Amino acid sequence: MKKLVLTGAAGRLGSYLREPLTKLADTLVSTDLVEDIGKLYDGESYVKADLSKLDEMMAVLEGADMVVHFGAIGDEAPFDDILQSNIIGAYNVWEAAYQQGVRRVVYASSIHAVGMYPKTEFIGTDVPHRPDTFYGLAKCFAEDLGSLYWDKRQLESVCMRILSAAQVNNPRSLGSWLSYDDLIHLVETSINTPVTGFSIVYGVSNNDRAPVDNHKASFLGYRPKDNAEQFAEKVLAESEHLDPTDLTHMCQGGPFATVEIGNSGLANMNVVDDKKTT
Amino acid sequence: MKKLVLTGAAGRLGSYLREPLTKLADTLVSTDLVEDIGKLYDGESYVKADLSKLDEMMAVLEGADMVVHFGAIGDEAPFDDILQSNIIGAYNVWEAAYQQGVRRVVYASSIHAVGMYPKTEFIGTDVPHRPDTFYGLAKCFAEDLGSLYWDKRQLESVCMRILSAAQVNNPRSLGSWLSYDDLIHLVETSINTPVTGFSIVYGVSNNDRAPVDNHKASFLGYRPKDNAEQFAEKVLAESEHLDPTDLTHMCQGGPFATVEIGNSGLANMNVVDDKKTT
Amino acid sequence: MKKLVLTGAAGRLGSYLREPLTKLADTLVSTDLVEDIGKLYDGESYVKADLSKLDEMMAVLEGADMVVHFGAIGDEAPFDDILQSNIIGAYNVWEAAYQQGVRRVVYASSIHAVGMYPKTEFIGTDVPHRPDTFYGLAKCFAEDLGSLYWDKRQLESVCMRILSAAQVNNPRSLGSWLSYDDLIHLVETSINTPVTGFSIVYGVSNNDRAPVDNHKASFLGYRPKDNAEQFAEKVLAESEHLDPTDLTHMCQGGPFATVEIGNSGLANMNVVDDKKTT
Amino acid sequence: MKKLVLTGAAGRLGSYLREPLTKLADTLVSTDLVEDIGKLYDGESYVKADLSKLDEMMAVLEGADMVVHFGAIGDEAPFDDILQSNIIGAYNVWEAAYQQGVRRVVYASSIHAVGMYPKTEFIGTDVPHRPDTFYGLAKCFAEDLGSLYWDKRQLESVCMRILSAAQVNNPRSLGSWLSYDDLIHLVETSINTPVTGFSIVYGVSNNDRAPVDNHKASFLGYRPKDNAEQFAEKVLAESEHLDPTDLTHMCQGGPFATVEIGNSGLANMNVVDDKKTT
Amino acid sequence: MKKLVLTGAAGRLGSYLREPLTKLADTLVSTDLVEDIGKLYDGESYVKADLSKLDEMMAVLEGADMVVHFGAIGDEAPFDDILQSNIIGAYNVWEAAYQQGVRRVVYASSIHAVGMYPKTEFIGTDVPHRPDTFYGLAKCFAEDLGSLYWDKRQLESVCMRILSAAQVNNPRSLGSWLSYDDLIHLVETSINTPVTGFSIVYGVSNNDRAPVDNHKASFLGYRPKDNAEQFAEKVLAESEHLDPTDLTHMCQGGPFATVEIGNSGLANMNVVDDKKTT
Amino acid sequence: MKKLVLTGAAGRLGSYLREPLTKLADTLVSTDLVEDIGKLYDGESYVKADLSKLDEMMAVLEGADMVVHFGAIGDEAPFDDILQSNIIGAYNVWEAAYQQGVRRVVYASSIHAVGMYPKTEFIGTDVPHRPDTFYGLAKCFAEDLGSLYWDKRQLESVCMRILSAAQVNNPRSLGSWLSYDDLIHLVETSINTPVTGFSIVYGVSNNDRAPVDNHKASFLGYRPKDNAEQFAEKVLAESEHLDPTDLTHMCQGGPFATVEIGNSGLANMNVVDDKKTT
Repeated sequence: MKKLVLTGAAGRLGSYLREPLTKLADTLVSTDLVEDIGKLYDGESYVKADLSKLDEMMAVLEGADMVVHFGAIGDEAPFDDILQSNIIGAYNVWEAAYQQGVRRVVYASSIHAVGMYPKTEFIGTDVPHRPDTFYGLAKCFAEDLGSLYWDKRQLESVCMRILSAAQVNNPRSLGSWLSYDDLIHLVETSINTPVTGFSIVYGVSNNDRAPVDNHKASFLGYRPKDNAEQFAEKVLAESEHLDPTDLTHMCQGGPFATVEIGNSGLANMNVVDDKKTT
Repeated sequence: MKKLVLTGAAGRLGSYLREPLTKLADTLVSTDLVEDIGKLYDGESYVKADLSKLDEMMAVLEGADMVVHFGAIGDEAPFDDILQSNIIGAYNVWEAAYQQGVRRVVYASSIHAVGMYPKTEFIGTDVPHRPDTFYGLAKCFAEDLGSLYWDKRQLESVCMRILSAAQVNNPRSLGSWLSYDDLIHLVETSINTPVTGFSIVYGVSNNDRAPVDNHKASFLGYRPKDNAEQFAEKVLAESEHLDPTDLTHMCQGGPFATVEIGNSGLANMNVVDDKKTT
Repeated sequence: MKKLVLTGAAGRLGSYLREPLTKLADTLVSTDLVEDIGKLYDGESYVKADLSKLDEMMAVLEGADMVVHFGAIGDEAPFDDILQSNIIGAYNVWEAAYQQGVRRVVYASSIHAVGMYPKTEFIGTDVPHRPDTFYGLAKCFAEDLGSLYWDKRQLESVCMRILSAAQVNNPRSLGSWLSYDDLIHLVETSINTPVTGFSIVYGVSNNDRAPVDNHKASFLGYRPKDNAEQFAEKVLAESEHLDPTDLTHMCQGGPFATVEIGNSGLANMNVVDDKKTT
Repeated sequence: MKKLVLTGAAGRLGSYLREPLTKLADTLVSTDLVEDIGKLYDGESYVKADLSKLDEMMAVLEGADMVVHFGAIGDEAPFDDILQSNIIGAYNVWEAAYQQGVRRVVYASSIHAVGMYPKTEFIGTDVPHRPDTFYGLAKCFAEDLGSLYWDKRQLESVCMRILSAAQVNNPRSLGSWLSYDDLIHLVETSINTPVTGFSIVYGVSNNDRAPVDNHKASFLGYRPKDNAEQFAEKVLAESEHLDPTDLTHMCQGGPFATVEIGNSGLANMNVVDDKKTT
Repeated sequence: MKKLVLTGAAGRLGSYLREPLTKLADTLVSTDLVEDIGKLYDGESYVKADLSKLDEMMAVLEGADMVVHFGAIGDEAPFDDILQSNIIGAYNVWEAAYQQGVRRVVYASSIHAVGMYPKTEFIGTDVPHRPDTFYGLAKCFAEDLGSLYWDKRQLESVCMRILSAAQVNNPRSLGSWLSYDDLIHLVETSINTPVTGFSIVYGVSNNDRAPVDNHKASFLGYRPKDNAEQFAEKVLAESEHLDPTDLTHMCQGGPFATVEIGNSGLANMNVVDDKKTT
Repeated sequence: MKKLVLTGAAGRLGSYLREPLTKLADTLVSTDLVEDIGKLYDGESYVKADLSKLDEMMAVLEGADMVVHFGAIGDEAPFDDILQSNIIGAYNVWEAAYQQGVRRVVYASSIHAVGMYPKTEFIGTDVPHRPDTFYGLAKCFAEDLGSLYWDKRQLESVCMRILSAAQVNNPRSLGSWLSYDDLIHLVETSINTPVTGFSIVYGVSNNDRAPVDNHKASFLGYRPKDNAEQFAEKVLAESEHLDPTDLTHMCQGGPFATVEIGNSGLANMNVVDDKKTT
C-alpha cells in the first residue's frame, strides 16, 4: 500500500496507532486539529485538517489507498458539537474518500451505537441500532453512511464497534476491555483483509466476560489475544454491590446508557476511562 | 387530544392528512415553509415555521400532545440540503417535542431507509438499515433518533416506512402502493394506539404483491384495505420486459436503488411519482 | 368420538363450552366442584369431582377419548391455592388421562404464561416462558407437563393460550379479546384436528391489534372471525392517556404484569374482566 | 409474450393449464410424450418431445420467452426411472432454456422436496431440503439447478412446491389442497411477476389448515382464493382416528413420508389422489 | 459478601462446593436434611433444614446475600416425591429469599429441563423447555419461578443447566461431562458476576463434543478448562455400536430420554453416574 | 470396527486417508478406478471398482461397517461427466450401503454446495443449498440423498463440506484451508462419533479467517488444530489488490463462483490448488 491516512491522530487511541500504521504503507499521513503532533515516525507525515471541512479532507485523502478514521469528539456532547465533528465529519471523510478513489474506510465506530441493549442478549453485528447518546447516534449515522457508499459506490468500510479501550478498573470493563495490542491487531486485520465490503465487527479483547458476538465477522480474521479476566479478582473485590435494575450495569453502553443526552460532563461522574474511550 | 401538530402540511401527503387529522384533536396546527396554506378546515390553524430552526419548532410544539412529522425534502438531493431539512430538521422536531412535553412523534419514514434489500427477502421491521440514497440515510438517522429519545427520554415514536404513495402506474407500485385511504388509516392508528414505545411499521396497502413484513407491528392495528392488484392487468400489459439483474427492479428502493447519490433530478428520469412520494 | 370430558364446566368459559361440546361426542361428561350444574344439554352428564384428587380424575376420565381441561383457579392467588388446583390439578388430569388411554388434552392455558413480554415483540408460540404471576407459572408448568407426556407417552395436548375472554371495555382488550364464538371454534378445531402432537396456540380473535403470532400453529386450522376493532372508537374515546412506561400497558399480561405476586384481590383493582378470564 | 412452452401438457395438471396459458402469450407450445394431445386451443400447438433428450428440448424451446415445466413422472418410482425423466429431464429443460435465451422456468416442484418435516413446524420457503422419496429428491435437484442457473447465468426460476392437487377426500388434503383455480392463479402470477430471480413458493390453497409458510414469497403476489375447509365436516366425519406417531399423518409428505423408497405402487395403498398429483 | 447459603450441602455435588464457597463470603451456611455434615471448613456452619418447609428456609436465609440451591432429589422419582422436594422446595427457596432480601439464587438446574431435544440441534439457552422426566419438569418449574421473581421482584437467578457431573465412562459423557473444577468455576462466576438478571447457562466442560450452546450467557464469564476428550479413546474402544434410532443416544437427556416417567430405579439400569448427577 | 471402505483412494485427498483409516478398522478396503494403488498398508486391501456401477459398489461394500466416500470427479466438468461419477456414483454408494447393511456414509461434500453465498454472511450448516457449479450441484444431490436415506432408512451420513485442502498460496485459502492433519481428524471423528444421524460439518482448519460456522455440528467433536494465519504475511504481501465486486473474492466458492458452468479448464486459470481439492 502506498498511502494510508489516519484521522484523529492526536487522540488517545489514534496516538497508539501511528507507529503500527507506518509499517503497513509507504506513507502514513496523520491528521488532526492540533498544530503539531510531535516527533514523527519513519514514513509518517502530519497534516493539520478539520474534519468538518470537505475541502480539507479532499486534500488529505488525495492519492490514499485507505483511511483509518478515528477523528471525532470522543465523549457525549451537545448535539451541535456532535453534528459538526461526528456527523458532518463522517460525511466528509466518506465523500472525499469516494471522490479521491480511496478503497476502504476503517472506522472507529462504538458500542454506543447499540448501547441500550442489555448485556444478557449477547448481540451480534447485525442487530438494529439502538444508540445511547448523541455520540452513539453519530456512530449509527456513520455506519449507515458506510452501508450506502458500499451499496451504491463500492467504497468498502469496516466499522469497528469499540467497547472500551480504557484500563480495566471497574466491573463493566471486565467484559468490554479492548487492549491496545488487540486494537492494533483489529485495525491491521481490517486493513489487510483483501475484501470486506461493508462489515461491522466488535472491538473487544478475548475477555471471558465479553458480552458481544463477533461470529458473523469471522472472515475478517480478528482474534484478540488479551483477556481482562486477569484483573477480575482485584476489580471485583473493590467493587460494591451493583443494582441490577440500574441500566448503567445492565446495558452494553454502561454509564452512557443512563447519562443525560447531550451532557458532556461525564468526566465528573467518576467514569473517566469509559468516557474518554469510544 | 387537545393539540396535534402536522409538519409538511403543504406537501403532497401532508395535504391529504390535514382534514382527517382535524377530527382527532381539538386543535390541529399545520405548519410548513409556505406563507399561506389556503382554506383551513374546522379546528385547523396554520403556522409558518422552518424545521431547521429549533426555536421555531419549540414555538409550534408548545402544548402539543403529538406531532405528525411529514416535513422534509421528498426526493434525493445534495447532502447539504438533506442535512438541513431532513437531518437537523428531524433533530429539531424530536428535541422540541421532548422539551415541550409532547408524548409521541408519528414520523413519515420511508422504504428508502432499507431500499437496498432485494424484494426476494421479505424484510421485516427489524432488519438493519440499508439506505439507498442520502434521502434514505436521513430516514435512518431519524429512526435512530426516535429510538434514542424513547430509550432515554420516554418520548414515543411510530416510524411509518412509506413504500410509495403515488399512482399505480408501473410494476414496482403494484407491490409498493400506499393508497391515500390507507395512509390516513395508518396515521390514525399510529396516533390512537394507546402505547407504542418506539415502533416501526411499513406504510403499504394490502397489495397482493406487497414485499415487506409488518407482523411485528401488528399490535398497532394497521390493516390496510386497498389493493393495487386491481391495476395489475393494465400496468403489466403496458410494461416492457424488465431486466432481473437491474437493481431498480430487484431492490425495495426501486429507482432510488440505482440513482446516483445526491442527484435530485429523479423527476427527469420519468419516475415522477416514485420520487415525489416518500 | 364417544366420550368427551370437560373440566371447569361451571366456570365462566366452561359454561359456554358445554352446549357446543355435546355436539362433538356421543357423551359429554362435565365436571366441576359444584354440587349441581343446572339443566343438562342433550348428551351431557355432570359429575362432581375435585381436580386435586387423582382418584376422582381417574374415575371421570375412564373411557374418555379426549379431555377439555378448563378447571382451575381463574385468577392470581396465593401459591398454596395455585399449587393445589392449578399445578397438582394439571398433573392429575394428564396422569389420569394417560392411565385411562385418553388421546388428547385440550388445555386452557393463558397469555399469562408469557405475560411479561412486551407487546412490541409480537411473540410466537415458541418463545420461552415468561410468566407474570403464580397463575401464569402454573400455566407454564402444565404446558411443560403436556410436552413431557407427548414426548414420553404419546399423549397429545393442545395448549390454548387465551388472551382475554372478557368484554372489550379497555384498550388492552382491543388486542387481546377472544370472543365466545372464536373460543368455541378454537376448542372445536383443537379437538377435530386429526393429529396435533404437543401444540401451543394463542386464543385471540381476529383483532386488528392482536399482539401475538399464531403462524406456527396454522396446521390446527384456527381462523378466528370476530374483531374487537368494532369497539375501538368507543373504548379509545373513554380511555385516558396511558403511561407507556407502565408495564400494565406495555406487557402482554396487562394488569397481571404489575400485580403483586400471590395477590388475589385483582377484582378490586377495577380490572374485573381481565381477571376473571384467563 | 410471444412464445410460451408447457411441458407435461398431457398430464393431469398440465391439461388444466393449457387453456389458461394460451391467454398469456401469442403462442403456446404444448409438449409431452404422447403422439397427440387432442383438440388444440386457440394459439396452441403441440410438439411431441422427450424430456430426457437435450436436442428435443432445444428444438421445443427455440425462441421461447418462458417455459412452464410440469413434465415428469408424477409418482414415486425406481431410481433409474426418476433419473431419466425427473433429473436428466430437468437438466435438459434448464440447459436448453439457457442456450435458447429463455428468460424464466416456472417449475412444478413439490412438497415432497421437504416432505419429512413435521407439519407442526410450519416450514417456510427457506428451509433446507428434506426429501421423502426419490421423487422428492429429484425435485430438490431441480430446485438447486434453478438456483445455479440464476446465480451463474441469470436464468430466472419460480419453483412452485405443490402440496396436493387432488380432491379433498382425506384429512391431510384439508391442509394440503391446491384447487385448480388456485393452481392457475399461481402459474399466472409466476409468469407475470416482472422480476423473480430464483424463488420458491408453496402451491397450496387458502386452506384454514395450510401447514406451510409463503410469506417470503409474498412479492410474487400469489393469493389463493379457495379453502378446503368447506369439505372439513364431511372428511373428518368419515375419517378414523389417526395415530399421531405415524409419520404419514405427522409429516408434510403424507403417505410419501412412509412409503418404501423407489416403490411405485402407491396407487394400491388407497391414496390414489395424493400419489398422482405432485 | 457476608453470608452465603448452600442447600443440598450433603449431596454429591454440594459436598464439592462447600470448601470453595467458604472463600467467597464471611460465612457459609450449609444446609441439608442430614443431622450432621461432618467436619466444617473455616467460616462454615451447618443447619439442618427441610426445603419443603417455608419457615425453615426463612430461618436459614435470614441475612443472606445469595443462596446456592443444590438441594433436591437428584434422580427421577414418583411425582409426589418430586413435588415436595423439587417443586415446593424450589418455591420455598425463592420465596424465602425474596422475603429475606437475598439478592440472587444460583440454581442447579439440569439438562433434563430440555432433555428431549436431539443433540444434532445444538440448543442454546433460549429454547423452550422440553423436559424428559418429572425430575426435568421440576427444573423447568424452578427456572420459570426464577424468571417470575426477576421480572416481578428483581430477585436475580442464574440457572446452571448441568449436563452430567459423573465420571467419563460412556459415550454420552464425552459430550456432557462437567468436571468438578469447572463446576466450581461455574458456581463462582455465577456468584461474582456483578449483575445477572435472570440467566440460564449450561454446566458443561470444554469438551470437544459438547452439544449445547452457551454463547448467549457469555457475559457471565464462564470458560471451562477441562475436556473429556482425554478419555475418548478408552471410552469409545469399550463402547459397543449404538443404535442411532434409540433416543437414549440421540437426545440431550441420555438415559432419562427413555426412562419410564416416575421410575426411580435408574440406578439398576447401569447408568449410575448419569443418574446421580443432575 | 471390522471393515471400512474408502472410495477415491487413489485421489489426492484419498491418498492421505489410507494409512490413518487402517488404524480404525480390522480391514480397510480401498477402491478407485486405477488398476493398482501401489504399496498397501497393514490391514489394507485394494479393489478396483467403478462408482457408476451399482453391482461393483455392492461387491465392495459387502460386510462393511462404514464407507468413507471420496470418489468423484474433483473439478468442475461437463454435466454428463458429473452425472455419471458424482450423481449416479453417489446414488450407488448410498444404495449399496443400505442393501449391505452399512451403518454410515462419511462423505466428502464440498463448500461448492453453498459456494454462491458471500463470505460476509458466515453461513452455518443449515442454510439452503446454493451451488456454484455442476460439481457443487452434485454435492447438493448427495447431501439430499443422505438426508433421505437417514429419514427413511436409518442409514447415517456425515457430509463434510471441505473448503479447500490445497496449499495456502492465495488470499482465499487463508480462510478456507483444511490441513491434512485436520482432514484426518475430521474423518476420524465423523467415524468414531457414536451416533450422527444425518449431519453436515464444514471441513476447514482453525483459521483466524474461517468464513463458515460449525457450531451446529459441535456434537461431532471436530476441533481443528491448524491455522493458515501462519502464512498470512507472506500470502498477503504477494497478493495484489482484489476487486471487492468480483464474486471470486466475495463468495465462498472462490474461483468456482465465477467459472463458466461445465468448464473443466479451471487448471488453466492459475488456480490450480483450489480446483484440485474439493
